[in-house]
Amino acid sequence: MKSEIIAVGSEMLTPFRQDTNSLFVTERLNEIGVTVAFKSIVGDRLRDLVSAIRTALGRSDILVLMGGLGPTEDDLTREATAEALGIELKRDAQQVAALHARAATWRITMPDNNLKQADVIKGAEILPNPNGSAPGQWLDVTHEGYRKLIMLVPGPPNECRPMIDAECMPRLREILPVRHIAKRTLKAAMIPESQADKLLAPIYTTYTDVETTILAHAGDIQLTLLCAKKSKEAAEDRVEELATKLEEALDDWLYSSEGESLEQIVLYYLGLRQSTLAVAESCTGGLVAQRITSVAGASRTFLGGAVVYSDPLKTAFANVPPDLIAKHGAVSAEAAVAMAEGIRKRTGATLGLGVTGIAGPTGGTETKPVGLVYFAVSDAQATDSYNRTFRGDRDRVRQWAAQQALDLIRRKLM
Amino acid sequence: MKSEIIAVGSEMLTPFRQDTNSLFVTERLNEIGVTVAFKSIVGDRLRDLVSAIRTALGRSDILVLMGGLGPTEDDLTREATAEALGIELKRDAQQVAALHARAATWRITMPDNNLKQADVIKGAEILPNPNGSAPGQWLDVTHEGYRKLIMLVPGPPNECRPMIDAECMPRLREILPVRHIAKRTLKAAMIPESQADKLLAPIYTTYTDVETTILAHAGDIQLTLLCAKKSKEAAEDRVEELATKLEEALDDWLYSSEGESLEQIVLYYLGLRQSTLAVAESCTGGLVAQRITSVAGASRTFLGGAVVYSDPLKTAFANVPPDLIAKHGAVSAEAAVAMAEGIRKRTGATLGLGVTGIAGPTGGTETKPVGLVYFAVSDAQATDSYNRTFRGDRDRVRQWAAQQALDLIRRKLM
Repeated sequence: MKSEIIAVGSEMLTPFRQDTNSLFVTERLNEIGVTVAFKSIVGDRLRDLVSAIRTALGRSDILVLMGGLGPTEDDLTREATAEALGIELKRDAQQVAALHARAATWRITMPDNNLKQADVIKGAEILPNPNGSAPGQWLDVTHEGYRKLIMLVPGPPNECRPMIDAECMPRLREILPVRHIAKRTLKAAMIPESQADKLLAPIYTTYTDVETTILAHAGDIQLTLLCAKKSKEAAEDRVEELATKLEEALDDWLYSSEGESLEQIVLYYLGLRQSTLAVAESCTGGLVAQRITSVAGASRTFLGGAVVYSDPLKTAFANVPPDLIAKHGAVSAEAAVAMAEGIRKRTGATLGLGVTGIAGPTGGTETKPVGLVYFAVSDAQATDSYNRTFRGDRDRVRQWAAQQALDLIRRKLM
Repeated sequence: MKSEIIAVGSEMLTPFRQDTNSLFVTERLNEIGVTVAFKSIVGDRLRDLVSAIRTALGRSDILVLMGGLGPTEDDLTREATAEALGIELKRDAQQVAALHARAATWRITMPDNNLKQADVIKGAEILPNPNGSAPGQWLDVTHEGYRKLIMLVPGPPNECRPMIDAECMPRLREILPVRHIAKRTLKAAMIPESQADKLLAPIYTTYTDVETTILAHAGDIQLTLLCAKKSKEAAEDRVEELATKLEEALDDWLYSSEGESLEQIVLYYLGLRQSTLAVAESCTGGLVAQRITSVAGASRTFLGGAVVYSDPLKTAFANVPPDLIAKHGAVSAEAAVAMAEGIRKRTGATLGLGVTGIAGPTGGTETKPVGLVYFAVSDAQATDSYNRTFRGDRDRVRQWAAQQALDLIRRKLM
């Protein structure tokens, strides 16, 4: 079955706003074995909308229309769908009553144009919207000899997504042939992209019945494996088999087999080892701490740290001796080591991290170019240091450095 | 002129990847007065591609096709465009030579299928691609009686965007009627959304010749004003007039009239006042420091700070007396004030910030619910404190709290 997603709204044809609902809807459709063949974004003009829906009817079996169901003049998805199908709209008395009731609970008088939202395409089922005033519509019709399943859902994500889950998916599942889906997400850190490709492609390309998607971002690689079979067991077996081989190939680059984030894994290992962590960040400026504290419950093992952007702060908060900075520079292996040891001792943490580098765009020299970052991880036994030169702009260097720092902590804990 | 953007690539029909080039292209087209009427995303199947291009030819004057110009079997944009137009493809000898030359500099033997990239639609101009091997193509043709401008550009952003700027825009400017565009971006912090709407809508809706777009995100509001006129002066006058009125209405919520970020403005004022800043963050966990240090040159006025996630660290790095925490709690106005004063004194900064709160999802009580955050900003004269309860999940509370913190610093400096 070919499906097509149409996002309706002129704001998504500006440089400022993007449709994101379609990613969610695609995930749901894929889970029941339906692929998305086209996505379209159309503005709030009746003629354009009718044209887009007609085109979709001509080439796809399942249509998901998102947005344009509100009460304003610009909300034309109902009208356009009815016109494209050649079916009448009817004002539904029950919906009119529901709209009045809703307005009453808000203690407002309902403007007349709100009643648009009670217009239903003849033959459509109404999909309740507990999170907003515009109901959705479900159509199962024969159009020019072909069966078409058409869903009209609201645009706001907090209305669209629950309606897809509660109303559309169960109806689709009932109609479509039963397929069981198995899914796994593997994640690896700091593996060079070319290396990843060379290691992984020969493995996953032989599993033509498992769809493997690889996403890479700033030192983080995510592999998603998806397999659809008639039996749940068959699907799970195939995914498991491929996952095991990929895990082996990824070796200790792999940090998660269940989709957790790197910061979650770091916190997990800290808990497991009954360890605590403190960080002293210079060039990453709080990015490492921010990622760790984005995880709920981080306070159990993360004590905190210092953003030692100035040299005196490196001394004040991380005990870095001023003469060490004078001799080796604030961006040096020696400084990173001193920061890691200093922050560990100052905070009483089991583990200390030091990060210092040149994020750019200025501040580089011939021997210490922009992108050079020194790391150190310290515990009671030893302090390991590492350095790497990252390419790209300030933001990219900082993202990569934070990822590298978290990965070094993970490796220390493993 | 109606334009349509078609992004080609099956990966953009998965839940994992999204077309972002189209936002860039839309901005460029809008700047010369061309609106985007449709955006489509199509996979790497010839039949689907031909169908999408035919549909676009039937309803739009300008077509921008992005992606599918590479050397693999999946790269079918050239073939599909030729088929939809009913024009032949020809292998271009000069392009073949260029591909061979490129392979030679990389010291690799070129696989035969790479030569696909030398296939040119008859009548098309070749658009050079300094950042990749696939050249673009420019077509100015009559199709079924109508003039169509068609651009084929590569998909990777670092190839697509420079080609749009260097090759496509100058050609479009030459053909389209001259229109001058004036643009302004205003930004405001922490203004309640309903208030913003009530204040601003009555003003900008009367300027029907200026397109006003409002984007809101976690306490940040961005207004973009765009006006196209036959003369540059006329466009600028209208934008200036509207901007002045909006600026007046936004009063001291306005922090930027030129599109700078809030952290840039904070750093600007710090420099202007010859002040320095240090921060002590608890619930924001480094987010404030991270935003400030994302700006190049932050080190001139930002000394750094402490992520005082645990109570002992609040004492060790920000001088918060343990008995103050015992009496009032780590999440209290008293603690925020002590953190702001403590970090200021410890670092010798002119200004100190303290942020402490309950980011959630757990840790809330009846008197101190999830989302409650205390702030304090301290200088040599006084320490001001403030608190607010933000709604939403952990991430949202942290985003709002960081924005509020930066805005309090801005107001202190103003």
